[in-house]
Amino acid sequence: MSQTMARQDAKPLPTVSDRHIDPHSYPDGIAFLDGQYLPMSQAKVSVLDWGFLHSDATYDTVHVWNGRFFRLDLHLDRFFGGLEKLRMTIPFDRQGVTEILHNCVALSGHRAAYVEMLCTRGASPTFSRDPRQAVNRFMAFAVPFGSVANAEQLQRGLRVAISDKVRIPPASIDPAIKNYHWLDLVRGLYDAYDRGAETALVLDFNGNVAEGPGFNVFCVKDGELSTPAIGVLPGITRRTVFDLCAEEGLAAAPADVSVAALREADEVFITSTAGGIMPVTEIDGARIANGEVGPVTSRLMALYWRKHDDPAWSSPVQYP
Amino acid sequence: MSQTMARQDAKPLPTVSDRHIDPHSYPDGIAFLDGQYLPMSQAKVSVLDWGFLHSDATYDTVHVWNGRFFRLDLHLDRFFGGLEKLRMTIPFDRQGVTEILHNCVALSGHRAAYVEMLCTRGASPTFSRDPRQAVNRFMAFAVPFGSVANAEQLQRGLRVAISDKVRIPPASIDPAIKNYHWLDLVRGLYDAYDRGAETALVLDFNGNVAEGPGFNVFCVKDGELSTPAIGVLPGITRRTVFDLCAEEGLAAAPADVSVAALREADEVFITSTAGGIMPVTEIDGARIANGEVGPVTSRLMALYWRKHDDPAWSSPVQYP
Repeated sequence: MSQTMARQDAKPLPTVSDRHIDPHSYPDGIAFLDGQYLPMSQAKVSVLDWGFLHSDATYDTVHVWNGRFFRLDLHLDRFFGGLEKLRMTIPFDRQGVTEILHNCVALSGHRAAYVEMLCTRGASPTFSRDPRQAVNRFMAFAVPFGSVANAEQLQRGLRVAISDKVRIPPASIDPAIKNYHWLDLVRGLYDAYDRGAETALVLDFNGNVAEGPGFNVFCVKDGELSTPAIGVLPGITRRTVFDLCAEEGLAAAPADVSVAALREADEVFITSTAGGIMPVTEIDGARIANGEVGPVTSRLMALYWRKHDDPAWSSPVQYP
Repeated sequence: MSQTMARQDAKPLPTVSDRHIDPHSYPDGIAFLDGQYLPMSQAKVSVLDWGFLHSDATYDTVHVWNGRFFRLDLHLDRFFGGLEKLRMTIPFDRQGVTEILHNCVALSGHRAAYVEMLCTRGASPTFSRDPRQAVNRFMAFAVPFGSVANAEQLQRGLRVAISDKVRIPPASIDPAIKNYHWLDLVRGLYDAYDRGAETALVLDFNGNVAEGPGFNVFCVKDGELSTPAIGVLPGITRRTVFDLCAEEGLAAAPADVSVAALREADEVFITSTAGGIMPVTEIDGARIANGEVGPVTSRLMALYWRKHDDPAWSSPVQYP
């Protein structure tokens, strides 16, 4: 049990600087915190915030496409639902948050943006471990739109691997509280990279397919759609697929989706605010059906983007 | 599906500030990041760091008591083990990290300190979702020592409630990677507060007792100690209890600990770097045995603190 000896040579202590000089660069965008609108380089969380130290936070992301928010109301519903479940309070109502999000996007100038609202537990000045003594902190930011799949992958379909990592079960974390507990997904992603795939799916606690890092998954078999029912984020894009299927008269239902069922599907696609509906054409090195993006996937992708101009599904950002 | 309308009145856009003005106050301490030693007010993580957005990070905490680090080598072992499992790299070896931790404590002047080393996945300037493109970021800080139990609670024993929240299972997150995935523990804590208790224990996926927010739990029955075996953090203070029991000729073993076994124990205590060995005398409103701090607990507490001056278990901070 020997202890590492440090500073045996009794070097003089280093100097303490007043202010951090940040050597990193950040994407172009605008953040809101503490009543201030700021460049992304200034959008930071204290290392003592329980939102960091305990991942005690909730959030939502909405996208802006062609200068319009897509289904912002649904994202606000989920965000305020998560706040309530975590017993967090913020000094803004729905209208207040909406205004902040509009301001972040308008000030950023982005016509296609990834927009996040979040609330951390915060911290107390004494670093008390009692979360009831922390002051909850709301933040928001708008950065350029990003997608899980790049242009080439959207064209030919993603190559996905199924990791044996198990998505954190609902008995531990309620997936309806959108949260930052992603280490299972990140480790699944590294499993996928190791096998030459581009992204990952992880399993639920029964060994069925659950979801991937930031997305839900659907399969199409004999014209009917299914997506994992339990232990997954109730994604807004997932819901949008149900809504589009209802409009189109396509059968779609949440269900247990086994690994075998996914491999034997006619079509597979994933859904995320970061990219919308994105085709998958290869799982664990084997092609799905003929390895081409299927007709149901293509039809839903087209419908999904068409809805982005529809005033019933989207709302314009008021740029200066 | 009506969309919330914002800025109907077309208010002028707010101004973007260059620099965040932070209205919050922070505990007294010193942090290290980006090669700089800084006051805690400057110790921040970008909101775009995956260590925040995906809780993709690992850490360790060690304490300084009476000017000496306690079992720093074991904490360094666990931290470097976590980095390897998460495929993170930092530009410091054990000696380098040790020197940074000593500097943080020495510069803070704290004789009793809570000292944390951590590494986040970081981010890439383009906000790429591929974690392999992120630059991992190491940080460390020293703040005043804190304890799960306050002085009164150490004297009379903690009042604990058992929540039905299930600790994130090892199939999802390897608990040997010390991590910030704590929402299950935080929600368990609120369950405990609701029942008038001071802290919480949560269950493992088999319904046995797992651990609490930042601590392991032990029970003593007929002179023998046991502590949950699976799905819990392999705590350094937990290990220290095993080491002390070995020295003292006390039987101690990891085992399944049912809720009933815990309630019927002769003694119960919890262990954490934040407070050491801390007695529990009430569970779910019922007293453990006669409701007094038991003899085995008291003996181990005394031994634990005595070891803090032992050069085989501790190493001095070189203050200026």
